[in-house]
Amino acid sequence: MIIVLKPKTSKKEAERVMAKIRENGLEPVPLFGIERTVIAVIGDSRTEALDGMKAMECIEKITSILKPYKLASREYKPDNTIVKVGDVEIGGKDFVIVAGPCSIESESQIMEIALFLKKVGIKILRASAFKPRTSPYSFQGMGLKGLKLLKQVKERTGLLVETEVMDVRDVKISAEYVDMLRIGARNMQNFDLLKEVGKVNIPVILKRGMNATISEFIMAAEYILSRGNKDVILCERGIRTFETAYRNTLDISAVPTLKKATHLPVMVDPSHSSGKRGLILPLSRASIAAGADGLMIEVHPNPEQALSDGEQSLYPEQFSKILEELKPICKVMGRNL
Amino acid sequence: MIIVLKPKTSKKEAERVMAKIRENGLEPVPLFGIERTVIAVIGDSRTEALDGMKAMECIEKITSILKPYKLASREYKPDNTIVKVGDVEIGGKDFVIVAGPCSIESESQIMEIALFLKKVGIKILRASAFKPRTSPYSFQGMGLKGLKLLKQVKERTGLLVETEVMDVRDVKISAEYVDMLRIGARNMQNFDLLKEVGKVNIPVILKRGMNATISEFIMAAEYILSRGNKDVILCERGIRTFETAYRNTLDISAVPTLKKATHLPVMVDPSHSSGKRGLILPLSRASIAAGADGLMIEVHPNPEQALSDGEQSLYPEQFSKILEELKPICKVMGRNL
Amino acid sequence: MIIVLKPKTSKKEAERVMAKIRENGLEPVPLFGIERTVIAVIGDSRTEALDGMKAMECIEKITSILKPYKLASREYKPDNTIVKVGDVEIGGKDFVIVAGPCSIESESQIMEIALFLKKVGIKILRASAFKPRTSPYSFQGMGLKGLKLLKQVKERTGLLVETEVMDVRDVKISAEYVDMLRIGARNMQNFDLLKEVGKVNIPVILKRGMNATISEFIMAAEYILSRGNKDVILCERGIRTFETAYRNTLDISAVPTLKKATHLPVMVDPSHSSGKRGLILPLSRASIAAGADGLMIEVHPNPEQALSDGEQSLYPEQFSKILEELKPICKVMGRNL
Amino acid sequence: MIIVLKPKTSKKEAERVMAKIRENGLEPVPLFGIERTVIAVIGDSRTEALDGMKAMECIEKITSILKPYKLASREYKPDNTIVKVGDVEIGGKDFVIVAGPCSIESESQIMEIALFLKKVGIKILRASAFKPRTSPYSFQGMGLKGLKLLKQVKERTGLLVETEVMDVRDVKISAEYVDMLRIGARNMQNFDLLKEVGKVNIPVILKRGMNATISEFIMAAEYILSRGNKDVILCERGIRTFETAYRNTLDISAVPTLKKATHLPVMVDPSHSSGKRGLILPLSRASIAAGADGLMIEVHPNPEQALSDGEQSLYPEQFSKILEELKPICKVMGRNL
Repeated sequence: MIIVLKPKTSKKEAERVMAKIRENGLEPVPLFGIERTVIAVIGDSRTEALDGMKAMECIEKITSILKPYKLASREYKPDNTIVKVGDVEIGGKDFVIVAGPCSIESESQIMEIALFLKKVGIKILRASAFKPRTSPYSFQGMGLKGLKLLKQVKERTGLLVETEVMDVRDVKISAEYVDMLRIGARNMQNFDLLKEVGKVNIPVILKRGMNATISEFIMAAEYILSRGNKDVILCERGIRTFETAYRNTLDISAVPTLKKATHLPVMVDPSHSSGKRGLILPLSRASIAAGADGLMIEVHPNPEQALSDGEQSLYPEQFSKILEELKPICKVMGRNL
Repeated sequence: MIIVLKPKTSKKEAERVMAKIRENGLEPVPLFGIERTVIAVIGDSRTEALDGMKAMECIEKITSILKPYKLASREYKPDNTIVKVGDVEIGGKDFVIVAGPCSIESESQIMEIALFLKKVGIKILRASAFKPRTSPYSFQGMGLKGLKLLKQVKERTGLLVETEVMDVRDVKISAEYVDMLRIGARNMQNFDLLKEVGKVNIPVILKRGMNATISEFIMAAEYILSRGNKDVILCERGIRTFETAYRNTLDISAVPTLKKATHLPVMVDPSHSSGKRGLILPLSRASIAAGADGLMIEVHPNPEQALSDGEQSLYPEQFSKILEELKPICKVMGRNL
Repeated sequence: MIIVLKPKTSKKEAERVMAKIRENGLEPVPLFGIERTVIAVIGDSRTEALDGMKAMECIEKITSILKPYKLASREYKPDNTIVKVGDVEIGGKDFVIVAGPCSIESESQIMEIALFLKKVGIKILRASAFKPRTSPYSFQGMGLKGLKLLKQVKERTGLLVETEVMDVRDVKISAEYVDMLRIGARNMQNFDLLKEVGKVNIPVILKRGMNATISEFIMAAEYILSRGNKDVILCERGIRTFETAYRNTLDISAVPTLKKATHLPVMVDPSHSSGKRGLILPLSRASIAAGADGLMIEVHPNPEQALSDGEQSLYPEQFSKILEELKPICKVMGRNL
Repeated sequence: MIIVLKPKTSKKEAERVMAKIRENGLEPVPLFGIERTVIAVIGDSRTEALDGMKAMECIEKITSILKPYKLASREYKPDNTIVKVGDVEIGGKDFVIVAGPCSIESESQIMEIALFLKKVGIKILRASAFKPRTSPYSFQGMGLKGLKLLKQVKERTGLLVETEVMDVRDVKISAEYVDMLRIGARNMQNFDLLKEVGKVNIPVILKRGMNATISEFIMAAEYILSRGNKDVILCERGIRTFETAYRNTLDISAVPTLKKATHLPVMVDPSHSSGKRGLILPLSRASIAAGADGLMIEVHPNPEQALSDGEQSLYPEQFSKILEELKPICKVMGRNL
């Protein structure tokens, strides 16, 4: 930790800062520069007790040297974490595509798309039973009934199933019906939800908040890891910027940056990133090339009838075609698709 | 609703779009322009059934004419809503300052600051029992014990009390202990929480998400209103931009914009907006001048010992001084402080 | 300057970094922390020679302690700079409003508005002869003819005149016709233009770039100051964010922040900040309350016929009314209007 | 053009809007909706005369249907533009990498890197003689002397050479020394510079401004095209967002979006996008996979001695290695490297 004092801070004030540091069992090293005094702190300054120091009037700026996360960091665990969902390995040699409709709308809809996905080789079906919607007047999902349909689909097709969880009260019940949970972008800093998901024994896809920094994103994963659930997959899904040409701006640099900073698998959701069907192929290719471990893509048996996200959902035939086009890039990157 | 078709869309395709509109009981008016065909939709196109239309390949863009919110809009209710918290009126002639520490840390801390605030004329005390923290290793709040302390403070001092609620399971119990609930920025789109808060009979301060547009902010209020709770106060608290000189960027234009678009009271939180003690006076003055109905300010008996937000909390003497400096501006704006 | 080395950097590598620092006549102080080594640099590390160091593979991060600007800083010159334009003082006790149309369109247009502004007490007329337009097909300004009209207006009415300069080749000639130059937001980092304006002997209003940080903004002023022109006025005019409800987002916190960091006068342009006539009154009030030294406002004799920015230009009668409404706030803030 | 009137607009006011439209030779089609009246405009409403209409008080919003650019659009010219620089074709089957140091620093530096690049198969050398620097105290480039060195390098090595132009007065002279000009991000809306570059007969790489929308970016190209220079190459180089983990955020979605909206070649600059050497390989791969026509990469014979951008410049051996790693992806995408 590096503490920069304001210009003209008195010696007495500087002494008071150093006393505070020593009180916490750490060692202050004062550096008297030409215009300012800087105090370096030796020891693990991630202690909360130092938080109050920020309030001292004589301090201009405090810079942390250590990263705020531990369990999620590559320094803590140098080798890649491979998350197992059934017999599927995410973060290993295989490139994994999780696909399906935005939400479960009916038995026939979900069964139709599941059979199609099974046929083209997809192993994990995504579909939301609970839907976060900007408007209280929009379709809010089928709820428990949707979860039951997912389980039914799983039994009939052998597909693994994944769904979003939004409410702390739904975590346990959802975990009984599906193979993997998802935390959506809007809930990335819903800390109570993170804690609850940290307590169940099932893999979780954590989506990056639209305005979350890389560091906050990893800290959200740290919440889950710190409660005991080690099977976290990070999913970049676009951030909010000034650009209005797309729904969100895919932050492709996040992929190699997350892979380097953490040991967790990293996926990309090109559907929400762009909000446009026509961008899914190029963004999927770019994600593979940037080093992602998988993709999450929206496919709907009939996007024109979709109750949500129709404009970004692929038609089944489009999805099959894209799948074929992604294979050569996966191969070049040394991944199996 | 205005639908712009892609260039070279066939007549047949355009016909299919119009058929869809008619199916929903609305009237399509086609306009054949020089480069593109546009279809205007007459009738209330806020129906969900039209959502699927966005998926049609021949459509380039859909623009809504109607605003997505109803209950929150000034067109629906032209006169100002005045929210009553005990005998305090927010949104009326009085300018209301809600003040207190970031979080409840101990009985002595909360009682000390409450007595001080009472003395300087503040009527509503803010203090969090549950704390949203970026790090799982930071102080997470005193929980139920904190709620009990708040009630105790209320009984002893006569102050009204306000606290943040983060978890749907805490809404009812919190409502029993305090006079007003707060939904924090990170939970502005925690829709289950909005719904739950919509069901209790107690005023709510809804803070704007760091990356929420004005329209999404009003839609979050609409969630609460649509569940029956009419006492919603909007609170601007800074948005996230590229600027790193302050913690967030106070969006001062939001104040007059929200006042015009909705009938709800609008407050500003200069503490979180800036994250810097030195900016609180100028930002408070600016907020009053821009037409805000109140302020939420962090004050701590001893910021250097605060367990959270110390650097943006005012010392009691600083707060008293600022309070005096705000009075003349309130007067000019025709508000009582 | 604080240099953080990557974890596991060898002693030899650290030694190489320190050697580089010593080569530049500065003193390295190594601090061996628990996870990382940090090297503090004592001396004025603003030297360019250290730039190359950033390229060393063993360095994780370099943090500057000193601010990059000197001449513009309050540490360099503690008292406020008062810029004199004719007999008008900007940055002193008077609150100064510069007003006028976006661009000069004709003799009658500019004379009509000038006479009106004179009548209501305005002393400096703004009007662009050269216009930065997003589209090459839009009106580009009257050029030299416009400058001549400005001079004519000045002679007939006694108003001081101000205009934007975009092209380095126009700086000298413009300076002969007007009393104050303006550098627009899009040219804030047009460094050749800054240098050219730094060489003339006439006050300059420097507008903040739409995506410029506070630090970059001050550095742009430093360019002008470092060439010899000391009469620089900073003008906040809104930054670009994700919010689309207004043309730009007025960064009101910039006003007190700039006033504290520099000694230069600070103005606000509520017209470009919002792009909406209806927001000009509240944003003007907020700017005064936040401590601004002046405003720049667009007024047009007939906004409906304006060749640019009609939607944000005030009608003369609206302007007179706003002017009256600003006086009480100026008074409260101790400023004369 | 679609004009939405404010609620409760009188019939007379609506009539006045329609009269204005007719005055301009266009046809208004009024649509009386349930809450608002909308007026559609038939005809080419890109006329400036309609600009003033935005100022009418009864108008709530104006939406353009037509895109603001013509010459740059794919609708205007459906087939790809191939820009020829010497015998190199950009935008065709070949994937083109422009490489070199940030700036020309000395004869030996530029010659050394040129010989290296020649050896590894690069055909176009980038190097700036004029440098846009945030600080007036930083190295500003070698100027004319640098241009002469570039020409010398070209003669000795046979490499084509490219350089940035910042000042309108340097355009003609620069065009005499090099094979391709570059307009940097900070000058993307330096309209006088765009016009000047539009008048010379030499290819131009136009870099996207850090806060420029896709539409503004294409409009900047339109400026150049409209003056007669048809050889424009668009270059995405990262936008400014809230994320501070990298220098800028590469907007990978811009690549397919620009390729679809325009017929111009699209390149990516992974060096400025990230500001980090370690991200250049993954971002280069992603750019190729997203459909880019080329890359611009910074390489320096000795980054540690670089006078600018050392931390993002590759060492020659790193560059050779990356070059090899890009070939398989180019092949998969059907491009020759």
